[in-house]
Amino acid sequence: MAFRHKHILGIEHLNAEDIQLILETGESFKEINSRDIKKVPMLRGKTIINAFFEASTRTRLSFEIAGKRLSADTVNISGSTSSVVKGETLEDTARNIEAMAPDIIVIRHGHSGAPHYLAERVGCSVVNAGDGAHEHPSQALLDLMTMRQHKGSIKGLEVAIVGDITHSRVARSDIYALSKMGAHVRIAGPGTMIPPGLARMGNVTVCNDLRDAIDQADVVMMLRIQLERQSKTLLPSLREYARFYGLNQESLKLAKPDAIVMHPGPMNRGVEISSYVADGAQNVILDQVENGVAVRMALLALVSGVDSMPAE
Amino acid sequence: MAFRHKHILGIEHLNAEDIQLILETGESFKEINSRDIKKVPMLRGKTIINAFFEASTRTRLSFEIAGKRLSADTVNISGSTSSVVKGETLEDTARNIEAMAPDIIVIRHGHSGAPHYLAERVGCSVVNAGDGAHEHPSQALLDLMTMRQHKGSIKGLEVAIVGDITHSRVARSDIYALSKMGAHVRIAGPGTMIPPGLARMGNVTVCNDLRDAIDQADVVMMLRIQLERQSKTLLPSLREYARFYGLNQESLKLAKPDAIVMHPGPMNRGVEISSYVADGAQNVILDQVENGVAVRMALLALVSGVDSMPAE
Amino acid sequence: MAFRHKHILGIEHLNAEDIQLILETGESFKEINSRDIKKVPMLRGKTIINAFFEASTRTRLSFEIAGKRLSADTVNISGSTSSVVKGETLEDTARNIEAMAPDIIVIRHGHSGAPHYLAERVGCSVVNAGDGAHEHPSQALLDLMTMRQHKGSIKGLEVAIVGDITHSRVARSDIYALSKMGAHVRIAGPGTMIPPGLARMGNVTVCNDLRDAIDQADVVMMLRIQLERQSKTLLPSLREYARFYGLNQESLKLAKPDAIVMHPGPMNRGVEISSYVADGAQNVILDQVENGVAVRMALLALVSGVDSMPAE
Repeated sequence: MAFRHKHILGIEHLNAEDIQLILETGESFKEINSRDIKKVPMLRGKTIINAFFEASTRTRLSFEIAGKRLSADTVNISGSTSSVVKGETLEDTARNIEAMAPDIIVIRHGHSGAPHYLAERVGCSVVNAGDGAHEHPSQALLDLMTMRQHKGSIKGLEVAIVGDITHSRVARSDIYALSKMGAHVRIAGPGTMIPPGLARMGNVTVCNDLRDAIDQADVVMMLRIQLERQSKTLLPSLREYARFYGLNQESLKLAKPDAIVMHPGPMNRGVEISSYVADGAQNVILDQVENGVAVRMALLALVSGVDSMPAE
Repeated sequence: MAFRHKHILGIEHLNAEDIQLILETGESFKEINSRDIKKVPMLRGKTIINAFFEASTRTRLSFEIAGKRLSADTVNISGSTSSVVKGETLEDTARNIEAMAPDIIVIRHGHSGAPHYLAERVGCSVVNAGDGAHEHPSQALLDLMTMRQHKGSIKGLEVAIVGDITHSRVARSDIYALSKMGAHVRIAGPGTMIPPGLARMGNVTVCNDLRDAIDQADVVMMLRIQLERQSKTLLPSLREYARFYGLNQESLKLAKPDAIVMHPGPMNRGVEISSYVADGAQNVILDQVENGVAVRMALLALVSGVDSMPAE
Repeated sequence: MAFRHKHILGIEHLNAEDIQLILETGESFKEINSRDIKKVPMLRGKTIINAFFEASTRTRLSFEIAGKRLSADTVNISGSTSSVVKGETLEDTARNIEAMAPDIIVIRHGHSGAPHYLAERVGCSVVNAGDGAHEHPSQALLDLMTMRQHKGSIKGLEVAIVGDITHSRVARSDIYALSKMGAHVRIAGPGTMIPPGLARMGNVTVCNDLRDAIDQADVVMMLRIQLERQSKTLLPSLREYARFYGLNQESLKLAKPDAIVMHPGPMNRGVEISSYVADGAQNVILDQVENGVAVRMALLALVSGVDSMPAE
C-alpha cells in the first residue's frame, strides 16, 4: 500500500490506516538497527535538512541517525546560528532552504503551526519534529509502536496521561493517535494545566486526580514538568506536584499488574516520576527511544515514496 | 580546460576565462541538483572542513550540501566552539586543521584577508566563504550565474547595486566580477556608505541617487541593511532609508521592463526591498540560492583538480 | 593479535602490549591519511556519537574525521544544546543515547570518571575524549606515537613534562603511558600546580625547576596554561610564569641536541612556549595533530573488533 501523505504535520491529519502503515514500516526498520551493518541504501542521494529552531538533543539525534541509516545526506540548522535571528521571516528562510533542493525538511519550531506554514510554501516534504504546544507526531507514533509491542494492539487500551497537558505537544499528538486507533485516554493534572475542550480531540476522559486516571490502566504515561520554565521560588510546589501528580511505587499499584510506564524524556526523577518506577520492571522508556529511530526512518522513507521493505 | 587556481580567495585574482569556466561548470552541476539521486562520486574520500568563524546559516548550508553531493566527507567548525576563543592565533588554528589532512578548507572569517593568510600557510586548498568587508567570491559567482541564465550574457549588462557598499563584501566581489565580464556597475547608497576609490575597482559609476542607478538597468541588486548592527533608536532613519534607498514597485519601473531583481539575503522586507518587489515576477532571488549550491560544487570540484563533467 | 578492550577509558587500564598494538595500528592508518582517497570501508554502517559535553574543537574534529575516514556514520552532541542542561542525569542521557543503537560513544565530560560511569551502564563501546582533570588517553597515545616516530622507541626516553600538572588530564595520561612503555618522566611546574603522590603513578621524578626537568631530556612537553580560567589581574604572574616555566631558545639548549618539543595545543605563544621554539626545528607539534587522527582511527577500529589492517 502506498503512503498517501507528502508531509507529516500532525497526527490530526492521519487516519487509522496511515498510522497502521507507519507502525508496520517502523517494525521493519527496527530490525535494521540491530544489525551489524545498520545502513540501507533507500535514501541514497537524498538531502535531509534538520532545521531545529528550538533546542533539542534527542529528537534531532534520532532524526539525524534515522536519515544516515537510510543513506541520506543530512545537514543541520540550529536556532542559535540561524538567520531567523537576523529578522528574516520564516517564509523567506523556508524558501531559501528549499532552493537548495532538499528532499525533506525536518522542522522543530517554537511556534504552533510553523511546519504547516512551511509545507504550504515549499515543494519538498516537511516532517514536524515538534511545533510549539501543538503536535509532536513522531513522538506519538513511537509511543504507539511501543504500546503495540508490549500490548499486541492499541485497540481497547486504557491509557493514562498525567501532567501539564496544556503545554504538551506530546499529549495532544498522543490523544489524537490513541483515539484514532481505538484506545481510551484518561487525563490527569493540576487544574491550571488541563485545557478546556479536550473531549473534542478524541476519546478522552478528564479525571479528578492521578488515582482515577491510573486505576486499572494498561499504560501510564507521565509527562515532563518543564523545570527550566519554573522559577526557583516554585520549588515547594514542585514537591507538592510530586506528591499529587508524581508516579511512584504506591500509585503504580492502582494500574493493571502488567501495565507499562512511559515517559517522553528527559525525566525529572523525583518530580513527575520516582526513580523506583523509572527503573522498574514496568518501564518501557528506553523502548520508546529505540522505536523513535525506527519510526523516524519509516516516516522519512514513506514521505519519500519508498514503500517497499528494505532487503539490504 | 584545466582550472589554474588552487584556492578561491577572491574575484580579484580571477580573470574572465576563470570565471567563464566556473560558470560553465556550475551549469553542469545545476542539473545534478534536480536529479532524483543528487549525488556524484567526484570527491569521494576527500575531507572538506567548513570553518565558519563568523555566524552563517545559508552559506554554510550551501557549502555543506555542495560537498556532500560531491560525496566528500564534510566537517564543520563554528566560531563559538572554536579554539580561537582560547587565544590561539589563526595561524596555529590553521596549521592544526591542516595537520588533519583536509583537502579543502572553506573559511568564513570576520577579518579581511584571513583566507589569504591561511592559503599562504597551509598545503590544502582554501575557499573564501566571506572575509570581513573584503570579498565573498562564491556569492558573486552565483550572482553572475543567475544573470547569465536570465540575460544570456554578462557582457554589456547595466547592473545597479544599491545599499551599504562600504561594508559589503558582496558588492566588492560583484563589482570585480561584473567588470571583468564586461558589465557596467552603477552604485547608489547613502553618502556615508559609499567608499572612495570605487572607480579603481572596475567599470563603476557612482550615482547620486537610487533612481539614477536603476534607470534603464538590466539588473537591480539590493544589499541587505545589517539591522542587527543598528541600535533601535535608528528606526526612524530606517524608514527614511526605505524611502530613499529601498526598492519598491514604483522605483522598479525605472529599470528596463525585463530587468531582474536580486538580493543576497537574508532580506529585510520593507527596508531595502518591498514585499511587492521581493515576491514579484522580476525577482530571481531564489534562483540565486539554487545556483549557489551548483556554483559551490563547481568551486570545490575545480580546486580539487576535477575538471571532467560528472556522468554518474 | 585481537584487542582485548571494549572501551578506552584511560591509559591506566591498558598494558604495554595494548599500547603497542594501538601504536602499530595507528601507523597503518597514518598511511591512509596521505592517500588521495582517504577512506576505508572498515566501519561502514556503524554509528559513532561524539558527545562533547565540554567545549572542544580539535579533539572533536579529529575524532569526527577519524570516524568518517573509516566510513562510519558520525553524529555530534555538544554541551550547550544537550539535555544535560534540562536537569537530566548523565545516566539517563547515556541510556537514551544508547537506545538509539550507536556502536561507539566518544565522550568528553567535565567530570572525572564520567566515561567510566557511562561504560558500566551502556552496551556499546565508550571512548574517553577527556574527562575532567583525570585522563585524556587518545592524547597520550598520539604523543607516544609521535615520540616513537622521532626516537625509534619509547623505552629509555627521558621525558620532561612542564606546567600545571594538577589540572592536566594530558599529563596524567602521559605519565601512565610513558611509565608503562619504559620511559622516565620528569615533572616541573609551580609548587601549587604539582599534586602530591605523583611517584605512585609511574616512573616519575618531580624536579625543582624547569632546568632540572629539561636537562639532557629526549622530549620536552609543555602544557597549556588555561588562560581562560585566569582573571586578568593575574597577567603580571603570567609574565613570571613565562620566565620561570616557559620554554624558550635558551632553556631548550639544556635538553639533548636532538630533543623534540611537544605541546598538546592550543598554544599560548609567549607564555608556556616562545614562538622561536614553537616554530623551531625541534618542534613536532603538528606531527602530534596528524598522528591524532591516525591513533583515533586505530582506537575506533580496535574497540569495534576490527583488527586486520586496511587494504582498501
